[in-house]
Amino acid sequence: MKHPKIVTVGVVGAGGFIGQYHLKRLSTVIEGVRIGAVYDINREKCDAIAAQYGAVSEATTEELIESPDIDAVVVTAWNAAHADLTRKCIAAHKPVFCKKPLATTLEDCAAVVQAEKEAGESLVQVGFMRRFDPDYRKIKEILKSGELGAPLMAHCVSRTPRIAPSHTTAMYVTNIVIHEIDLFRWLLDEELVKGQMLFPRSTSLAAEGLADPQLALMWSESGVLIDVEAAANSYYGYDIQCELVCEKGTIRLPDPAAPIVRSRLQCGFAILDDWSQRFPTAYQMELQHWVDYVRGRVSQPGPGCQDGCAACAVAEALIRSQTTGQVESVTL
Amino acid sequence: MKHPKIVTVGVVGAGGFIGQYHLKRLSTVIEGVRIGAVYDINREKCDAIAAQYGAVSEATTEELIESPDIDAVVVTAWNAAHADLTRKCIAAHKPVFCKKPLATTLEDCAAVVQAEKEAGESLVQVGFMRRFDPDYRKIKEILKSGELGAPLMAHCVSRTPRIAPSHTTAMYVTNIVIHEIDLFRWLLDEELVKGQMLFPRSTSLAAEGLADPQLALMWSESGVLIDVEAAANSYYGYDIQCELVCEKGTIRLPDPAAPIVRSRLQCGFAILDDWSQRFPTAYQMELQHWVDYVRGRVSQPGPGCQDGCAACAVAEALIRSQTTGQVESVTL
Amino acid sequence: MKHPKIVTVGVVGAGGFIGQYHLKRLSTVIEGVRIGAVYDINREKCDAIAAQYGAVSEATTEELIESPDIDAVVVTAWNAAHADLTRKCIAAHKPVFCKKPLATTLEDCAAVVQAEKEAGESLVQVGFMRRFDPDYRKIKEILKSGELGAPLMAHCVSRTPRIAPSHTTAMYVTNIVIHEIDLFRWLLDEELVKGQMLFPRSTSLAAEGLADPQLALMWSESGVLIDVEAAANSYYGYDIQCELVCEKGTIRLPDPAAPIVRSRLQCGFAILDDWSQRFPTAYQMELQHWVDYVRGRVSQPGPGCQDGCAACAVAEALIRSQTTGQVESVTL
Amino acid sequence: MKHPKIVTVGVVGAGGFIGQYHLKRLSTVIEGVRIGAVYDINREKCDAIAAQYGAVSEATTEELIESPDIDAVVVTAWNAAHADLTRKCIAAHKPVFCKKPLATTLEDCAAVVQAEKEAGESLVQVGFMRRFDPDYRKIKEILKSGELGAPLMAHCVSRTPRIAPSHTTAMYVTNIVIHEIDLFRWLLDEELVKGQMLFPRSTSLAAEGLADPQLALMWSESGVLIDVEAAANSYYGYDIQCELVCEKGTIRLPDPAAPIVRSRLQCGFAILDDWSQRFPTAYQMELQHWVDYVRGRVSQPGPGCQDGCAACAVAEALIRSQTTGQVESVTL
Repeated sequence: MKHPKIVTVGVVGAGGFIGQYHLKRLSTVIEGVRIGAVYDINREKCDAIAAQYGAVSEATTEELIESPDIDAVVVTAWNAAHADLTRKCIAAHKPVFCKKPLATTLEDCAAVVQAEKEAGESLVQVGFMRRFDPDYRKIKEILKSGELGAPLMAHCVSRTPRIAPSHTTAMYVTNIVIHEIDLFRWLLDEELVKGQMLFPRSTSLAAEGLADPQLALMWSESGVLIDVEAAANSYYGYDIQCELVCEKGTIRLPDPAAPIVRSRLQCGFAILDDWSQRFPTAYQMELQHWVDYVRGRVSQPGPGCQDGCAACAVAEALIRSQTTGQVESVTL
Repeated sequence: MKHPKIVTVGVVGAGGFIGQYHLKRLSTVIEGVRIGAVYDINREKCDAIAAQYGAVSEATTEELIESPDIDAVVVTAWNAAHADLTRKCIAAHKPVFCKKPLATTLEDCAAVVQAEKEAGESLVQVGFMRRFDPDYRKIKEILKSGELGAPLMAHCVSRTPRIAPSHTTAMYVTNIVIHEIDLFRWLLDEELVKGQMLFPRSTSLAAEGLADPQLALMWSESGVLIDVEAAANSYYGYDIQCELVCEKGTIRLPDPAAPIVRSRLQCGFAILDDWSQRFPTAYQMELQHWVDYVRGRVSQPGPGCQDGCAACAVAEALIRSQTTGQVESVTL
Repeated sequence: MKHPKIVTVGVVGAGGFIGQYHLKRLSTVIEGVRIGAVYDINREKCDAIAAQYGAVSEATTEELIESPDIDAVVVTAWNAAHADLTRKCIAAHKPVFCKKPLATTLEDCAAVVQAEKEAGESLVQVGFMRRFDPDYRKIKEILKSGELGAPLMAHCVSRTPRIAPSHTTAMYVTNIVIHEIDLFRWLLDEELVKGQMLFPRSTSLAAEGLADPQLALMWSESGVLIDVEAAANSYYGYDIQCELVCEKGTIRLPDPAAPIVRSRLQCGFAILDDWSQRFPTAYQMELQHWVDYVRGRVSQPGPGCQDGCAACAVAEALIRSQTTGQVESVTL
Repeated sequence: MKHPKIVTVGVVGAGGFIGQYHLKRLSTVIEGVRIGAVYDINREKCDAIAAQYGAVSEATTEELIESPDIDAVVVTAWNAAHADLTRKCIAAHKPVFCKKPLATTLEDCAAVVQAEKEAGESLVQVGFMRRFDPDYRKIKEILKSGELGAPLMAHCVSRTPRIAPSHTTAMYVTNIVIHEIDLFRWLLDEELVKGQMLFPRSTSLAAEGLADPQLALMWSESGVLIDVEAAANSYYGYDIQCELVCEKGTIRLPDPAAPIVRSRLQCGFAILDDWSQRFPTAYQMELQHWVDYVRGRVSQPGPGCQDGCAACAVAEALIRSQTTGQVESVTL
């Protein structure tokens, strides 16, 4: 991998919400990067974005990926295209930052891993941004210090107040629990080997036929049991909680700080209404890390396609469990 | 049941920790009661306690229960004696407050329920004191107000820092989870119909062969899923947590208030070291409620032998699950 | 002082809110006491209360105090009568629990102190109940441990949501700040020697002509500076805060624990609406301590008339300052 | 003022801690700016920094300010040089960002204000970064919404764990309280008209002869009374607190979020050890705002030399009070 001084990136899927979210960061707070080209299936939107960022509006993803002006690629296209786009980047020996998930099937994940292996270098970073959140990093640091002993359990909550009508039961795994899957592989430094999804009483606020909330159970190699409540119709707000239980104590993710208001018979603080303000530093840090890695300024790559593939395997076991009702083993 | 103006109670099992704990309350903060007689298998201790409280030291439990001077009985003997003693009280038509559990087997529970039925009046209160805790009562009040919609899940934690060497795997159910079993029957106003115990990685602080912590899963009739972490070697302190998840919001039991100390690079508050200071108001209120009921000052009895029996049935399903590894149905 | 096994008390001022508040405790949770007689200027009310508690309804305070059946007296009459009643109790060599303040003038306080001195025994306990609150006691314990070094400052807040129309500017000192006056004499184990009252912008919710909130500044002998916001029209609720600042850290009084509710975009807990539920344990403990002292079961008397007098002297300096606008010295 | 597309800045005082702190931001997260030149009195350091950032190392401040390549200037030199440097920038019609304070004397402040007036455009932004902190902005937003009524008081705390030996008593005002001075002028939208400094008992951790902590009292035009504890030897950590008291409720600045650890008998979170991590977003936002203003992308200037001057006037009154012991009026 060559290490450009300033990384010229192309963004595929520039028109979506996440695309715009990353473009804004890349054009402002991320250091050492410039936006060279953008692609979106919506041509009009693509041209407008290109104009906004002084970038080339490419007509095809291939042209963008293969352009000699582009050092590296950010993939924020829809999930079904991730694997193919990532492989094309690998084929072009271009570093690629791919929004999670790496692929929608385990086969596709494995194919990306294989492609990267053949390319002989670490080219892919998957968008598991929570690894870059300062509070989760502090939790890992405390865990690694050993002062609280070995980890035994974790209790997690992931609630979002509302969801698109197209949300399916499987997407509680692929879009919500997927974050905790990667998080605990990273926090615990070991694989998750079994999983089960349970269906509690459903909220009347969920769409007809949707099981919401769901409870994921996951076991690590050493037996750490992680439970994750995944809710996509929580109504009251966006809320991420995590308590890691160790032998001699526990560590809990804090609520985001907000002014504390005392009003008539109430003391409280505001809860967020959506995800976009929950992990701003993490989203910034993951992109900065990727750019720094491409520039050769850090040697440790971020979460790569092995991680994306391993997360996909755990997700697949959980989705199987949604049908079988049983604990399912993770198979790679 | 006659309603004495001042209830003269006899305490069976006066010498144990719980016996002394209740005697102290009965002799101080509980209104409308006097200690008339005590019994303990340790005769010396029994005489000393009798002297301390100005009470008669009875030679047998039968003499205590049948004494015409005794209006009502408090049973704090060891668990194996609860059912027999309670039935003797019922036979003598004496109101009885029985420390939980009501009995150690479902058959014994059923026999007590049957005996009370035949006696034709509500004579038994079981020591499920959390129903009397002001915070749990407030949680129930908020739930019943309907402002947060229907209950869907609950996440609970019950941790005690250390445990007697005689503690068995089954006792995580009968001595720890039993409180949440009764609590949720009461909070949700419905039966728990299924349960499962899971064994996460065990702490190295637990005795050889003991599974600690354990995770209980319980389902109510309407599908509310309750998870309870039960730990008896938590090391760091005694900690009871509970979050009830409803359709439009959640309610969480607070930590006990304690002065907040800022010291070198730390802001924190003290955690309790054992259960005895965790629910002092609840312990007081349950006894006061029982005395008030015996005096005819309140008409609603506390948790009775039906509740003790139902809790025992749920516990039995959970204990079965410890062996089968499966979800087990509650059978009455 | 003779030490009766069970203390028969007479309550003067039985008909007021505080009178009833104490009667309820004395008749229920306080151990070793019985209510022998009551007096209230409202004869009808007095008779009704006497009947309720099975006590004698005395026609005059003198008859109550001098009655051979009465071991000790609780004074909950209006403030102006405190000094006189307390002196009559001393004259009758009867232990007396006097609701704060001990007297409304420094001269009257001094006269009580003198009377007690002549009587040659500690007969008076003044109702400074915060000394008995478990959290303030824990604060004192931490302070005394020395781990945080010497005390330097304290920041206090005392807010009540609404107040009787008869409330005067001076009563912010005598009815509100008086608690912090006694508290810090006790916490710091030294006298308060100077004080000043400041008038911030007044709330439009206060009655015409009333300065609300006010800020009290008080200095201890060693220079510890205590600021106390006193508000009697806080609207939002009853709120007592206290942060003691030491050389190496601070200690803060916690908010009362209450269930934590997450509802639409809000996480919060309930605030109290009035004082009566704020320090229930403290009110119980102070009365129990007094009864225990009268019974000879504890040798250390509670806050006495010296404390009442010293608090009155500090209050007088603060009230002077309300007019002069200056720092005023405390003179005894 | 011309509005360059990318602002080329010169940094005066590049070698100090604050200089480096701002250089790092300017070279990374701030958008629309590049570092063109640096100056530091330490020539060796200056050359090294210039090399690091690819900037010119200027031999004099004049050359830097007057350089045709430099669009705007950041002044992070020592306080005594601020006024002179700022005036030189104004004379050169160059926008200037000046670290607080604007000047060390009121005369110097007034001279800068006059110079800017004569220049006929808003050229100066003073480094009062707390106005840009999201939590303080939220507090202002709630205040402005009117839901809590008018502001009446504020209780603030500003503690830093240790301080340079050169710190003087006056610097508690100019370096610490200065932030609250500006903050409340901005929050309340009115001037502070009176002030007083009080000296509580001093910590034994302070240098000989230093009064630490100190309590500042400040009154706004409408009578809002603000108290600020200023401590520079707090030992335990860096701690900024602020509670704004309004007629119907209060708003409190939250503690920075940090993982909550339960360890042996303790539940707590980490406190910061110094200021540099306390307001990272505010430091970033103030610089970004300045750059945006210079680029013509926002029309509202940040806190300007009028604000710097007004803050200086309040500070002068407080410093006078340190000697007189009296409330001092602010004179402009």
